[in-house]
Amino acid sequence: MRNINEDTITQAVLASMSHCSDERLRTVMTSLVQHLHAFARDVKLTEDEWFRAVRFLTEVGHITDDRRQEFVLLSDTLGLSMLVTTQNHRKPAACTEATVLGPFFVPDAPEYALGDDIANGAAGAPCFVSGCVVGMNGEAVGGAQLDVWQSDEDGFYDVQHEADTEGRIEPQARGRLHTAADGTFHFRSILAEAYPIPHDGPVGRMLEALGRHPWRPAHLHFWIQADGYEPLITHVFRNGDRYLDSDAVFGVRSSLVVDWDRHEAGVAPDGTRMDEPFYTLAYRFVLNPRGDAA
Amino acid sequence: MRNINEDTITQAVLASMSHCSDERLRTVMTSLVQHLHAFARDVKLTEDEWFRAVRFLTEVGHITDDRRQEFVLLSDTLGLSMLVTTQNHRKPAACTEATVLGPFFVPDAPEYALGDDIANGAAGAPCFVSGCVVGMNGEAVGGAQLDVWQSDEDGFYDVQHEADTEGRIEPQARGRLHTAADGTFHFRSILAEAYPIPHDGPVGRMLEALGRHPWRPAHLHFWIQADGYEPLITHVFRNGDRYLDSDAVFGVRSSLVVDWDRHEAGVAPDGTRMDEPFYTLAYRFVLNPRGDAA
Repeated sequence: MRNINEDTITQAVLASMSHCSDERLRTVMTSLVQHLHAFARDVKLTEDEWFRAVRFLTEVGHITDDRRQEFVLLSDTLGLSMLVTTQNHRKPAACTEATVLGPFFVPDAPEYALGDDIANGAAGAPCFVSGCVVGMNGEAVGGAQLDVWQSDEDGFYDVQHEADTEGRIEPQARGRLHTAADGTFHFRSILAEAYPIPHDGPVGRMLEALGRHPWRPAHLHFWIQADGYEPLITHVFRNGDRYLDSDAVFGVRSSLVVDWDRHEAGVAPDGTRMDEPFYTLAYRFVLNPRGDAA
Repeated sequence: MRNINEDTITQAVLASMSHCSDERLRTVMTSLVQHLHAFARDVKLTEDEWFRAVRFLTEVGHITDDRRQEFVLLSDTLGLSMLVTTQNHRKPAACTEATVLGPFFVPDAPEYALGDDIANGAAGAPCFVSGCVVGMNGEAVGGAQLDVWQSDEDGFYDVQHEADTEGRIEPQARGRLHTAADGTFHFRSILAEAYPIPHDGPVGRMLEALGRHPWRPAHLHFWIQADGYEPLITHVFRNGDRYLDSDAVFGVRSSLVVDWDRHEAGVAPDGTRMDEPFYTLAYRFVLNPRGDAA
């Protein structure tokens, strides 16, 4: 330990953890240290680059607050989030695929009844969403909890808007619903549009330096929870979006891309008379029973 | 890109950087992404562990400010700092070895003349430091700039003390000196003691979970700069310290460990009459000429 050099440092760090009583933690940290050191050796990381990395991570930490999670953005844009998602949700091909949570989920969203308009004033063309939640054998999953959230026509989520003087932000285009006994659901919202992930911070500068754009194709987020089934965090993407093949966070899976149909003014699916064009989309979510995970 | 799965995600991320015009950045980020993903695969990182990692890094970011750099502590305690230091300072064995900078260096320390007391009121037994700075062939390096900094007898650096109402902290046991024309230097300070790195934050909790202590053996920091030579960032360690074999930041090199001699009250090296015991230490620093780096 007194004669550490660039060849022995890794073993010295691993040896220092030999008294760790948490076996899983030791396993994770052993691998982390080995890969971190291997990275520094592979590229012969310079001291200047190390300083810049420390400064970058400091900036990521300082811009992160209750409403902006720059570390999640960093993980998302480096593909780590999608990797962790996929390797933890190996399941039968018949089940709906999972994708990244993203940084804009908010717990305890407002409750809505089926048929309600969850837009709550968010700007965008009307969009009527319907579908059903079923199990592997096609059985209806009644009472499933659906958290839904999305961006508005300007590409912003509610949490990206200015808070009021008391620090509150009105939830918009975000809500929680429950499926009917036959597993179906329907609600009104607005058309989701493609949007750039927040790119006015360190992650945005990283993307620019890497020659990457910050855009995500239009999508609607779903987090579905039901007794007896694995939770499903996923998106439904809009077919035809120009960013489907270059999603900044690598979240697209072709099974999640569907047509969002445009309709001229007329009668909406819920019987409302619409005097402007509107959209419809439908999706059938297939949940994996608990305990069947690969 | 629409059918990314856990096997193809890494290639997709690397492909997204194909337009990066900065070749070195692309090299570094390619290796980083490969190792980050390999780590997540090796341990099959769970979503809960990912969430906890995001929360940990957020805490590291939030506790970091102008006076506390928790990311540097994290890098130090994982051995990354020492690895980066050693691989960037391969040099002839005759040269003084480098070690980690640590989080307590402050630019523009107060200037002192040779012989001054740089303690400036810091608590601790008096310590008289002397030595010389030479080149590879033993040639004196006159006018070399020495930044020196250390902890006090309570194990704290000046920057860990409370700031005054205007946010200022009096520099103590920290200073800048220049070698005489014959390469020698001498100054008075206090005895450095072993101390724990700041462990009331996320890095401290990490060390505890890993069964590691946060202590560093007593040392005096030196940053030596002179025209025509590579800068040298190093420590001089105190022989006999109980933590020499388990330094929390892996910074000890046996060539940097020397005796700090204790003397009973009497006449100090500078001729001062001391009515309390005092210490002396001496070190000969050998700089590497610029351009000779391996």
